[in-house]
Amino acid sequence: MRKPTPEDKFSFGLWTVGWTGTDPFGTSTRPALDPWEYSDKLAELGAWGITFHDNDVYPFDAPVDVAKARVAQLRDAAAKAGLVIEMVTTNTFSHPCFKDGGLTANDRSVRRFGLRKVLNAVDIAAESGATTFVMWGGREGAEYDSSKDLYAALDRYKEGLDTVAGYIKSQGYDLRIGLEPKPNEPRGDIFLPSIGHALGLIAELEHGDIVGLNPETGHEQMANLNYTHGLAQALHAKKLFHIDLNGQKGLKYDQDLCFGHGDLLSAFFTVDLLVNGFPSDPEGSRYTGPIHFDYKPSRTEGMQGIWDSAKANMETYLMLAEKARAFRADPAVQQLMTDNGIFDSAVPTLAAGESVADFLAADEPFDADAAGAREYRFVELYQAAMRHLVG
Amino acid sequence: MRKPTPEDKFSFGLWTVGWTGTDPFGTSTRPALDPWEYSDKLAELGAWGITFHDNDVYPFDAPVDVAKARVAQLRDAAAKAGLVIEMVTTNTFSHPCFKDGGLTANDRSVRRFGLRKVLNAVDIAAESGATTFVMWGGREGAEYDSSKDLYAALDRYKEGLDTVAGYIKSQGYDLRIGLEPKPNEPRGDIFLPSIGHALGLIAELEHGDIVGLNPETGHEQMANLNYTHGLAQALHAKKLFHIDLNGQKGLKYDQDLCFGHGDLLSAFFTVDLLVNGFPSDPEGSRYTGPIHFDYKPSRTEGMQGIWDSAKANMETYLMLAEKARAFRADPAVQQLMTDNGIFDSAVPTLAAGESVADFLAADEPFDADAAGAREYRFVELYQAAMRHLVG
Amino acid sequence: MRKPTPEDKFSFGLWTVGWTGTDPFGTSTRPALDPWEYSDKLAELGAWGITFHDNDVYPFDAPVDVAKARVAQLRDAAAKAGLVIEMVTTNTFSHPCFKDGGLTANDRSVRRFGLRKVLNAVDIAAESGATTFVMWGGREGAEYDSSKDLYAALDRYKEGLDTVAGYIKSQGYDLRIGLEPKPNEPRGDIFLPSIGHALGLIAELEHGDIVGLNPETGHEQMANLNYTHGLAQALHAKKLFHIDLNGQKGLKYDQDLCFGHGDLLSAFFTVDLLVNGFPSDPEGSRYTGPIHFDYKPSRTEGMQGIWDSAKANMETYLMLAEKARAFRADPAVQQLMTDNGIFDSAVPTLAAGESVADFLAADEPFDADAAGAREYRFVELYQAAMRHLVG
Amino acid sequence: MRKPTPEDKFSFGLWTVGWTGTDPFGTSTRPALDPWEYSDKLAELGAWGITFHDNDVYPFDAPVDVAKARVAQLRDAAAKAGLVIEMVTTNTFSHPCFKDGGLTANDRSVRRFGLRKVLNAVDIAAESGATTFVMWGGREGAEYDSSKDLYAALDRYKEGLDTVAGYIKSQGYDLRIGLEPKPNEPRGDIFLPSIGHALGLIAELEHGDIVGLNPETGHEQMANLNYTHGLAQALHAKKLFHIDLNGQKGLKYDQDLCFGHGDLLSAFFTVDLLVNGFPSDPEGSRYTGPIHFDYKPSRTEGMQGIWDSAKANMETYLMLAEKARAFRADPAVQQLMTDNGIFDSAVPTLAAGESVADFLAADEPFDADAAGAREYRFVELYQAAMRHLVG
Repeated sequence: MRKPTPEDKFSFGLWTVGWTGTDPFGTSTRPALDPWEYSDKLAELGAWGITFHDNDVYPFDAPVDVAKARVAQLRDAAAKAGLVIEMVTTNTFSHPCFKDGGLTANDRSVRRFGLRKVLNAVDIAAESGATTFVMWGGREGAEYDSSKDLYAALDRYKEGLDTVAGYIKSQGYDLRIGLEPKPNEPRGDIFLPSIGHALGLIAELEHGDIVGLNPETGHEQMANLNYTHGLAQALHAKKLFHIDLNGQKGLKYDQDLCFGHGDLLSAFFTVDLLVNGFPSDPEGSRYTGPIHFDYKPSRTEGMQGIWDSAKANMETYLMLAEKARAFRADPAVQQLMTDNGIFDSAVPTLAAGESVADFLAADEPFDADAAGAREYRFVELYQAAMRHLVG
Repeated sequence: MRKPTPEDKFSFGLWTVGWTGTDPFGTSTRPALDPWEYSDKLAELGAWGITFHDNDVYPFDAPVDVAKARVAQLRDAAAKAGLVIEMVTTNTFSHPCFKDGGLTANDRSVRRFGLRKVLNAVDIAAESGATTFVMWGGREGAEYDSSKDLYAALDRYKEGLDTVAGYIKSQGYDLRIGLEPKPNEPRGDIFLPSIGHALGLIAELEHGDIVGLNPETGHEQMANLNYTHGLAQALHAKKLFHIDLNGQKGLKYDQDLCFGHGDLLSAFFTVDLLVNGFPSDPEGSRYTGPIHFDYKPSRTEGMQGIWDSAKANMETYLMLAEKARAFRADPAVQQLMTDNGIFDSAVPTLAAGESVADFLAADEPFDADAAGAREYRFVELYQAAMRHLVG
Repeated sequence: MRKPTPEDKFSFGLWTVGWTGTDPFGTSTRPALDPWEYSDKLAELGAWGITFHDNDVYPFDAPVDVAKARVAQLRDAAAKAGLVIEMVTTNTFSHPCFKDGGLTANDRSVRRFGLRKVLNAVDIAAESGATTFVMWGGREGAEYDSSKDLYAALDRYKEGLDTVAGYIKSQGYDLRIGLEPKPNEPRGDIFLPSIGHALGLIAELEHGDIVGLNPETGHEQMANLNYTHGLAQALHAKKLFHIDLNGQKGLKYDQDLCFGHGDLLSAFFTVDLLVNGFPSDPEGSRYTGPIHFDYKPSRTEGMQGIWDSAKANMETYLMLAEKARAFRADPAVQQLMTDNGIFDSAVPTLAAGESVADFLAADEPFDADAAGAREYRFVELYQAAMRHLVG
Repeated sequence: MRKPTPEDKFSFGLWTVGWTGTDPFGTSTRPALDPWEYSDKLAELGAWGITFHDNDVYPFDAPVDVAKARVAQLRDAAAKAGLVIEMVTTNTFSHPCFKDGGLTANDRSVRRFGLRKVLNAVDIAAESGATTFVMWGGREGAEYDSSKDLYAALDRYKEGLDTVAGYIKSQGYDLRIGLEPKPNEPRGDIFLPSIGHALGLIAELEHGDIVGLNPETGHEQMANLNYTHGLAQALHAKKLFHIDLNGQKGLKYDQDLCFGHGDLLSAFFTVDLLVNGFPSDPEGSRYTGPIHFDYKPSRTEGMQGIWDSAKANMETYLMLAEKARAFRADPAVQQLMTDNGIFDSAVPTLAAGESVADFLAADEPFDADAAGAREYRFVELYQAAMRHLVG
């Protein structure tokens, strides 16, 4: 497979390659490097961009000048390496003070501190040239149904998001917010557990026009949901601002495997959507942002394994993209799609100008038994994809 | 436990008590009765209302006059029994013609037929005095990612919903639509898999003001989601129009157990929300609709078991309601809620009139370590609920 | 991909291609054919064998002579078509009388009837030349923890299995029993929910020597388990007597998709195990039985879709087999396997003749930090499989 | 609820109350105390026993004399506090050297080191008066199907278990091994993922007579399995040597909530089994060991929350025990159990002395339709439990 190029727009979180392997039952298996060491190597592997949390670059309790200096050093290193800093985010989950949440903590002093931390990271994002500001509310949630006023918590979430979005507008930053849903872990139930829930809350915002989604493959799959279906609904709502690709093997802890190393067929159709668009390909319905990987090199890996796995994400994406293009270009596939009515589904149910009254009045015959016997051949179409993929 | 009264607003779908026990691996274990036989008995047990699909009352292929006559007979029986017909819905999932969907089928003739069937049921709903029209799109979905243009399908779903909502308005019916999300079964992936996804699509509708939710306990739990959290988000969006209570034991086929017979602690907090409201109890945040049960008497049960189980739903609700009231009225519980900041969570993070600029400029000390060490005692509060529930 | 041949030993249950599409929310979308019509077509597609439940061939209430005549007619048709009847099983789940179980029903008269039905099917199996008799106890289980004496139920299961196995021996039949585990559906919790549980009960049997496993891909995945790991444990216990391959997309209703149409990477490693054996390939550790598919053509399919999907199972298996052989033959893969210690894992931990006393007394240095830093490169090996699979 | 007494045999792992709150996304929220500080407090709360991993008491790299001194100090503290050290276990999962397993690591030097560590902990267990030695192979497993020779891994597991069991016998220790199954976390797939799989491997051991199970509530539930069913199978196999009670809310990361704070109805029936035995109560079928809690005080809790939650486990157990006793003693419940055939299920299917030949030859009428219509009233019995539990 060819080497990635900047045109592929592959980007990586510094926390991905930088994960040292601490898990609930074990300590670090790898040392932590300085952020620029990771970014230099990513550039070498063909990445186009990097992303980070504030505390991937400087410690939680770093004095302001130290923080600024480290961000500046990373920015310089990225520039030198030809890397774009495409997204920045805040860590409002690691420090014990956030144990009950950042923007929705019961404790108002924590909420105020959390909000300041987020706004500070917005400035860093803007200064770094990022165009997306991701907000993952990992600690916004509860283990116990009794421990939250759920209405108030949603009010606080809304207040927080509107404050941040309003601030972005007031500063004239070229930034959009990408909410990252997750159903659970580290909290028992996290607010905004899926793409849908985030879309629902965005619809209630005052500044919702610059708030959209950053859906992660594994997070949707942890809610037993189809990631590609989720992306489609986000695109339909014009809210797919960013994506986090990775791999997950079903309902268990958040695995953050390499992209493709989880549900491979689902990954194929995700890539199919990203590179080919919907069959009807409506104006403005394509995702054009970065291809961002949010994964963790397994704890069994050393430094070599970090780079093996970083490469694996890009390589798999490129392999699937090639297969997906061939699949959709295949005349036999197009014929099956035509025959099973996929293209017809883009035709409105009511005719142009047809009123409901006319529709109801029409004496339109329908042969229910014939419709029930229609041969959709959905299996054959899927198998055609299998042939392209593994044939 | 006392007998249910009309003030409890308990209602049942005719298809619930009327389920004859056919499952994917076995045939019916109980005979089918006429709908009025079920409704008479439900009235006797203390139910306040009933609900039905069109084809719970008359067969799919019934001539119009037969259909009308059977609905009329049911309406009369209900009136005589003192039952309200509070909700009506359409069956667009049982007949083979709907095997690829009703409103989103790839086949446009199916979509047109499905839309007509829905609109016809809307008339029945209005004529029957129902105030809610539920739409469960059980066949709107796919087994294979390749078998749908997901964007077009969402467009068709939107078109269908707006057509139905527009028709309701045009007819001046006192009806609101309740969408019923479900993640899967009978399709591999159903569109609008959760409360959140439905809220997201509603936000895109033209006539979304009369479209809300009818969330079912087990359906959310089949997506590994917290049902009470989902109800809270629907209430926050002013979209909780109706509810379907039942029981489910985790991620498996749709069990439709009696309410409470699945995740009992979750059921307790659902009832707590329904009878006590949110701790901050904001104006308009309470659910005031029917308490509707959508369950199935297990296949091992005979006719006696149908009524045992119908009663069990109501009895469990009443038992939990009593416990929930005592829980929230307990001064020790109120103290724990005060101490752990639940009431503080209703206080906006920014002070009244505080601008973001002021907020950022303020020199506000924050002791992160102290905040990290705060004793929330969430476990003790939950255990207080346990004491009320099973002590 | 080449056409299947008898050497591939592909077989199909008559109930697979014969499924007419009834599901919990819908009626049949396809007509039922006579069993020989399915078998003739399967032979034409390249299948080597067929399998059936008694009631796939004759109705539950068929008189004995009708039953015998239909089985004979199927046997003749199979012989003429060159098909082996490799496995037979009993239906003790569809009729209402089995609603609480066959061998473990609380009702002793049901248990006696169920046992007779099983023994009768054993005779049919032997007369048909089958070498495996599968027992899937789909109704052996419960929805409610209170509805069974679990100890007594396991005693009855054991009694039933030993009676059947003892009967096989007493008749001198060349038959082995394959238990088919499943965690749930149609019961809320089925006894023997996984491969492991079946192995556990087999160890308690008197005639356990001829009782083994028939594990189904999707059934293990419905318990969130790794199917290939399960096959490995069954092989290690010398109990993998038969397999049921199909596809499942995670924790939901039993989908019975085509093999490979669920978790594709898992399917790849299942085939890798079946065609290549374990890396250490110990004597007698390979599975040599039929490649049996237990799937359902999706309800959206017509008669054409039945054959599309039957072919898809075999085609996917052959495609994966070719890829798996290339993967394991690749010198780079062998090198990675050597480097990451896979072959070393076959070396006993204690040396030959080393006693525990000697072992404990030995002054054997161990550099824990070096061991913690070892580069396993498991990701790179997996990615090598990806390259073979989709590169 | 009354205070616990030694007769209740409640015990706690030191690692439970001692968990400091580190999770995959956050650092410790509580300080670590010396082990005797936890044990003193547990004794004060009414616990009868404690349990520990070697490295709960001394660090991984402690010199032998330090290790011995700390264990001795804990032993003295426990004796003084009147606490039994009922179980001891080894930590072969936290240190990076175990990243690919302890007894089944691909690296033989790790296996030899791991085995020594286990044998050393066996000595500590015996010296401490423990009667159970638990083995949880948390790192025995894989993320990738390609990274293990699964047959060899099972061989190594077997070798390791037989070596440890053989050593226990050779030393004459009064100790039995309790295997603790878990499906995943921290590895993607752990070997021996459920009670069943452990029973299966035990049946292959040479010294399996002293190897049994220590099943944990949440671990089975992470495999979507019914914990009480699992306990029943372990009891049926005479292998329930120890138990780990806690709470889990479905398929997600390992929550280790307080007992009862997960699936409450399941917890009720677990307690029902523990205090009342099976309905038929066969000789030797009761569990008589410690009631051991393996939970974690939520990360939101401080030191007060640790003791709140430790108490909650015991209180909930006692509340459920009282309810379970009343449930089973209720004549209405006994009548329902009689009517639904629970007691009949203990009657062998074949009569005493009835041969299979006689059984098959008997002309025994069976009314399948009547059997299909039998009223089991399982729902009413379950609801009777609900009435006792929350009425």
